[in-house]
Amino acid sequence: MTGFVGVNDAARWVATTGVEAIVPGMVEYLEHDFRRWEQFDKMPRVASHTPLGCMELMPTADTELYGFKYVNGHPSNPARGFNTVVAFGMLADVSNGYPIFMSEMTLLTAIRTSSTSAMAAKALARKDSRVHGMVGAGSQSEFQALAMRAVLGLNEIVVYDIDPDAIAKFVRNLRPLGFEITVAADAAEAAAAGDVVTTCTADKRRNVILRDGDVRPGTHVNTIGGDTPGKTELDPALLDRGPVFVEFPPQTRVEGEIQAKPADFPVTELWKVIDGRVPGRTSDDQITIFDSVGFAIEDFAALRYLRDATLGTPYVTDIDLVAEPDDPKDLFGLLGALSPVG
Amino acid sequence: MTGFVGVNDAARWVATTGVEAIVPGMVEYLEHDFRRWEQFDKMPRVASHTPLGCMELMPTADTELYGFKYVNGHPSNPARGFNTVVAFGMLADVSNGYPIFMSEMTLLTAIRTSSTSAMAAKALARKDSRVHGMVGAGSQSEFQALAMRAVLGLNEIVVYDIDPDAIAKFVRNLRPLGFEITVAADAAEAAAAGDVVTTCTADKRRNVILRDGDVRPGTHVNTIGGDTPGKTELDPALLDRGPVFVEFPPQTRVEGEIQAKPADFPVTELWKVIDGRVPGRTSDDQITIFDSVGFAIEDFAALRYLRDATLGTPYVTDIDLVAEPDDPKDLFGLLGALSPVG
Repeated sequence: MTGFVGVNDAARWVATTGVEAIVPGMVEYLEHDFRRWEQFDKMPRVASHTPLGCMELMPTADTELYGFKYVNGHPSNPARGFNTVVAFGMLADVSNGYPIFMSEMTLLTAIRTSSTSAMAAKALARKDSRVHGMVGAGSQSEFQALAMRAVLGLNEIVVYDIDPDAIAKFVRNLRPLGFEITVAADAAEAAAAGDVVTTCTADKRRNVILRDGDVRPGTHVNTIGGDTPGKTELDPALLDRGPVFVEFPPQTRVEGEIQAKPADFPVTELWKVIDGRVPGRTSDDQITIFDSVGFAIEDFAALRYLRDATLGTPYVTDIDLVAEPDDPKDLFGLLGALSPVG
Repeated sequence: MTGFVGVNDAARWVATTGVEAIVPGMVEYLEHDFRRWEQFDKMPRVASHTPLGCMELMPTADTELYGFKYVNGHPSNPARGFNTVVAFGMLADVSNGYPIFMSEMTLLTAIRTSSTSAMAAKALARKDSRVHGMVGAGSQSEFQALAMRAVLGLNEIVVYDIDPDAIAKFVRNLRPLGFEITVAADAAEAAAAGDVVTTCTADKRRNVILRDGDVRPGTHVNTIGGDTPGKTELDPALLDRGPVFVEFPPQTRVEGEIQAKPADFPVTELWKVIDGRVPGRTSDDQITIFDSVGFAIEDFAALRYLRDATLGTPYVTDIDLVAEPDDPKDLFGLLGALSPVG
């Protein structure tokens, strides 16, 4: 049987365990997989684009496990009462191809994305970072806030969103958890206040969320929302002010902030920093930029973590995905005796 | 909620309904989707190859539904007590990206493959065909036999396999269903006897299952097992004797029998025959060849059929794959109230 974690079980697991207790473990799994980046079979995601949104499959594999995520992206969904993003994923045993674990990944992706941001910030932000400037208070924002506090200790947040309801929701969700939250008058004020600045916006039409002058020297910029062709968040001039770190350059050059730059725009692969092969931040005055678009290896690490963390708990159940006839050459035998025809 | 049909429920549905009662309906769905072939978003399958086997994702979409299948292929699995192939698939609503149906597809693929063969034979075989020559009595063989009887009325089978146990299993499974079965001394004898000849073998090392001279004029050849690079079943000379019909040429030229031929080897797309745009068989002396490798649109049709056929039956249950927060922008709200930190 294949282990399965559904939405309600995942939500109960996260609520019971706490996002901040989950993130450090997930960062460990991410760091483990980033350090062995070269061992993965890295395939491009396969996308089906339609007028209302896209549907994607993101596969990857190491020598023991194969994993993929199905994920959609429909910007018009919230206006119709649906989530923008729904996702699920699977791990299979490479030795026989059998699915061994499946999970919802809407919640899990929110945690893997924020954990990846925290992993990058841990490697790139100034050690004395204290304030988290946030532009965008949507679905991903609380997870970003919790991950940055769990890993970097950032308890102070200055937040801005064009939607006052989103800010109200953000404050309502996070103030009870002990965060010191200030609401900024605009994106520039949130950016100027942050030692770490996260942009996670969904609107495709506002493609300069941060202007070059908004960001102080020494800031680490964590840009999440520029993740598809035609959708960016940063003033391209800002990308010239500091080293830009990316996940998988062939994908980021198409989907990330650097799509606004020439194909030879210099970037550093984040896995090389995590593995200690190349330096991250080299001075306290530097602006460091993590141009995050999300990559299959992160989902792979997240699924591995969830599988290990839920093993033997009531949050994982069995799903009947694998046919197991007594004789593998006798699939028909599974059906039992059929009646003879007249 | 997303509808789900697991292995046991699929087996109960097939056993209760009967393969021969299912195939004609599935052929209708296949024909419907083959006739609108041009409307589909046709993507290449994404494969991860390892020393022991491969794992693949096969997506496709029309304007209303997106579907994909996960399927592995591990030739060494049966020797270790596992199935060669395990598969599952999903349909999503293109308008919002939500998964609406998921199913095991090990059994379903066996029926879709044999239904596709039957659809092709219905269009290409001589109308007076009576005998089904079969080479290969493995997992797929009973489904081929039943589909050809359901659609073409072929009750007489002459079968050969290099493995006597496989033949014994084939006879044990099918004789009670009223088939007249003769066991041939070799592949040539089975081929010579058939009006329709099916090759469905798994062994990668025997790549000439049918020699050119084995096949009589007027035969329809349904070759199933040559479906991956380096794996073929027919003497390449046999391919010159009649028109060759394929699913999706870019895929078949890599995976099918015609991989043994130059890139400009003439083929006819089966969907054009099904749609009546080009002729199939043009004389009773012709050899027609369906070089089948399996294509995503067939899985799409099979999933649509299963979803419609099981709607409202106990064979379909709910699977908890879609997060539905009250406010789509408040994914964090799903978690309920977390305790404040000390």
